[in-house]
Parts: sequence; structure tokens; C-alpha cells
Amino acid sequence: MKPPVNPIRETDEEARRLARRLIRGARFAAIAVLEPGTGFPFASRVLTAIDTDGAPVILISGLSVHTSALAADSRASLLFGEPGKGDPLAHPRITLRTGSERIARDSDAHLRLRTRFIARHPKAALYVDFPDFAFFRMTPLSASLNGGFGKAFALEGDELTISSPAIADMAELEPSAIEHMNSDHADAADAYARAFGKSRKSGWKICGIDCAGLDLANQDDLLRIEFDEIIKDAGQLRRKLADLSGLARRK
Amino acid sequence: MKPPVNPIRETDEEARRLARRLIRGARFAAIAVLEPGTGFPFASRVLTAIDTDGAPVILISGLSVHTSALAADSRASLLFGEPGKGDPLAHPRITLRTGSERIARDSDAHLRLRTRFIARHPKAALYVDFPDFAFFRMTPLSASLNGGFGKAFALEGDELTISSPAIADMAELEPSAIEHMNSDHADAADAYARAFGKSRKSGWKICGIDCAGLDLANQDDLLRIEFDEIIKDAGQLRRKLADLSGLARRK
Repeated sequence: MKPPVNPIRETDEEARRLARRLIRGARFAAIAVLEPGTGFPFASRVLTAIDTDGAPVILISGLSVHTSALAADSRASLLFGEPGKGDPLAHPRITLRTGSERIARDSDAHLRLRTRFIARHPKAALYVDFPDFAFFRMTPLSASLNGGFGKAFALEGDELTISSPAIADMAELEPSAIEHMNSDHADAADAYARAFGKSRKSGWKICGIDCAGLDLANQDDLLRIEFDEIIKDAGQLRRKLADLSGLARRK
Repeated sequence: MKPPVNPIRETDEEARRLARRLIRGARFAAIAVLEPGTGFPFASRVLTAIDTDGAPVILISGLSVHTSALAADSRASLLFGEPGKGDPLAHPRITLRTGSERIARDSDAHLRLRTRFIARHPKAALYVDFPDFAFFRMTPLSASLNGGFGKAFALEGDELTISSPAIADMAELEPSAIEHMNSDHADAADAYARAFGKSRKSGWKICGIDCAGLDLANQDDLLRIEFDEIIKDAGQLRRKLADLSGLARRK
């Protein structure tokens, strides 16, 4: 008898990078939750953003099944990675198992997430302050990455979060850094998108900066660019952005 | 105190039609299942087709989480309806709660589903006969339709299945009817796609016919066209297709 085949490959840095890009570069995901009462597995669609530590964030209505589900059982999973043209299963996707935490409306976290979420989803400004809407922070527990046929990987939650002593400082710096870049270096975002995202469009704006990378937005497109290493001191940001511009010019 | 708002609208024929089109015209869906052992809600992606009675069909690998999940607990839900451009939540989608039944490889159902599945997903021919792959028929139980902001509907399973005394006869007739239409009336599929699906492409082929409508395929595109009424006698098919052609010419 043959030994059972283990279809899971050993996780390498390329797999980790793909996993992070799928999660951090998403505009939406399919969420699976447990319906209250029956425990039925329920799939639906949510808009997503990420917090400064890489945890996904969703904004959901109190009238939805998923909000009452998470109130009863905080476990969820999020499927990131949308198929484009061709075989839907040839496109990479990741299932992230998460806990979830409802963010109180008067908290510092709410202010931070509200700003980052609207930067990514400008139309959410229309309903973000409706009393029945709430943010949930989804804590990564583990993940199943499928990079296409025969490319399956299992990842731990801490491989998908951003760990740095500079997270709080960077979060404080973020709004002014974005404003500065989009005003005084308005061509940088287009150069980043061209060099690192193979985009031919112009009109890109930076919509998020954290210790692991930056988010670019252009109408309905979103592009995640990861730094080559995590920023450990917010003072390094200016240098990191200048390095990126240098790399972009040489591409 | 205000009475609680009921966000669910009364289901009308337009909602039912939208729901059926989302399910029957899909190439893939997000599936939510319960992970064995933990009961964790797990979301992933599956290719979909439909059986002749409208039940969704999936083809999944025995190595996947969802196969072992369905073996332990047959409950699942399928999220159909992919966002295009613009706000992802402005696009209609439906969550279909289902039971599931593994289809034995030597059954008549397997032969029927294999043929219909490959007609919709030609690349699946590469792995459909691998010993670890199996078809599951997903029995519709109920559904939550979201047609966009404020357009929520609850549907029963029997509003989403195809009920007709002609189902078996039509299934028998299907292969020869498809062959006849694609060979002897090769322009009909393009005319249907133009008239009823607003397609400007040519090269459409009929890939499925059942008592409620037909499926057109063109490379990676799929288009579902529903008849104005259910066929109750397989002998009506020729007339129904001729009527469709007449309607298409007048559009």
C-alpha cells in the first residue's frame, strides 16, 4: 500500500508573500459564519480593509445574518482572492480562519479603522455612521492557501499579522504621510503602481501606509505593495518611500 | 419605541428570476462548510454546475477540507453572484443553504452530471475521473437573496428547483438537442446571447438544456437564459427554441 499523500507543501517565503498580498490587497471577501440557533454554515460577502497590524476589518450591518452570527459565536473564516479570466480554480485564494471582535463606536480603534476603511472604500462614508453598522476586527488564527492546482499551504496566524514596535507610531504618522505623498509627490503612486503592480493606469493615490507596506487606490482598483522588510521605527518611513521610488525608476 | 424594522421584502417574481439566474448562470461559488472536529465555519471556492432539476452540483477533491467536512456534516451554503466593476456590495448575490449528497461513480446520475459539468467546464475533463474527485449534488433548502442595498429577500428551496414531469425525458433528449442546435442552427446561440444577454461576442454554443432554460458558453463566459415558462413535455422543446429565435429576431 502506498503511504497517504500529504497535499500540503512546506510554507516558504513566496507562499507567505502571496498570502499577505491576497489578504491585504482585497476589497472584499466571502465570509463564513455559523447561523445562530442552527449552527448552519452561512456564506456571504463583506467589504474588507486591514488594520495597522494586518488584521482584516469588516463593516457590517446589524440587520445582516453575519452580525447576529458573530455575536453568538465569534468564529469566522474569510475567503480572499478573486478569480479573473480563465479557470476560476487556477487563481490563488486563501481561507483565513479568524476570531472576531466588535469595535466600540467611541474607541480610538474605531476612529482609526473608520479612517482607513473609508480611504479604501470611499462610498462606505455614506453608511459608516448609521447606528446599526459596526466594525469587526478579525483576528487571524490560521489559514489555508491555495496557489493553484497542487499548491496548497497551511499558515499560522502570526505569519499573517504585522509585528513591529513601530505600529502605534506609524498609525499616528499615517494621515500626514499620505497627505504629504499625495500632494507633494503626486507622481510617486503612479510610479509605484507601474513598477510593482504592472499597472498602465495613471491617477493612483496612496490610501494606506503601515509597517509592512502601502495600499494604492485608483477608482475601483486596489494595489498592495509590501516593503522588502518590516519598518521597526516610524522614522524610517521617509527613507523607505524614497528607496521604493529609486527601485521604481530602475525597473 | 419604534417597531423593529423587517429588512426582508416580500418575494416577487422578479426576485425569484434573479435568484435562479444567479445560481444557474454561475461558473463558481464560495462554499461554507463546517470543519470536522472543530465545527469551524470554513469558506472556500468551488466550480459549480446545475443538475436537470436545478440543484447545484460541485466537483471536489477528497484532499480538500470541504470534502471531509461534507462527509461529517452534509450542511453547506453556496454564495453565488460575482461583483463586477464598482461597489462590490451593489452587485446582487445569493446565499443558498443546502444539504449535500455524494454521487456514486457507477450511478446514472454520475454519467449525467459528468456530461453536464464538462460541457460547462471543459478543463474539468482533465481531473474529473481522478479517483479522489467526486460530485456532490447540493439540495436547495432556503436562500437569502441580496439584490443590492435594501433589497433583501428570503426564498424557499422549492422556489429555486425545477419541477416538471418532463425532467427525465428532457435529460435524455439533451445531448442530441445540443448537438443538433450547435451543428444545424449554429447561429441561434449567438442570436440568443445578443438578444437576451446583451452580448456582442460571437462564437456562443449551447452547453446545457433543461426544462427551465438553456446555458450558453463562450470561452470563459457563461450565460443562462430562462424560458418564459417551464417545459412540461419534452416534445415542446423544438417549439420553445423556435419561439426564442423569433423573439430574438424581434429584439
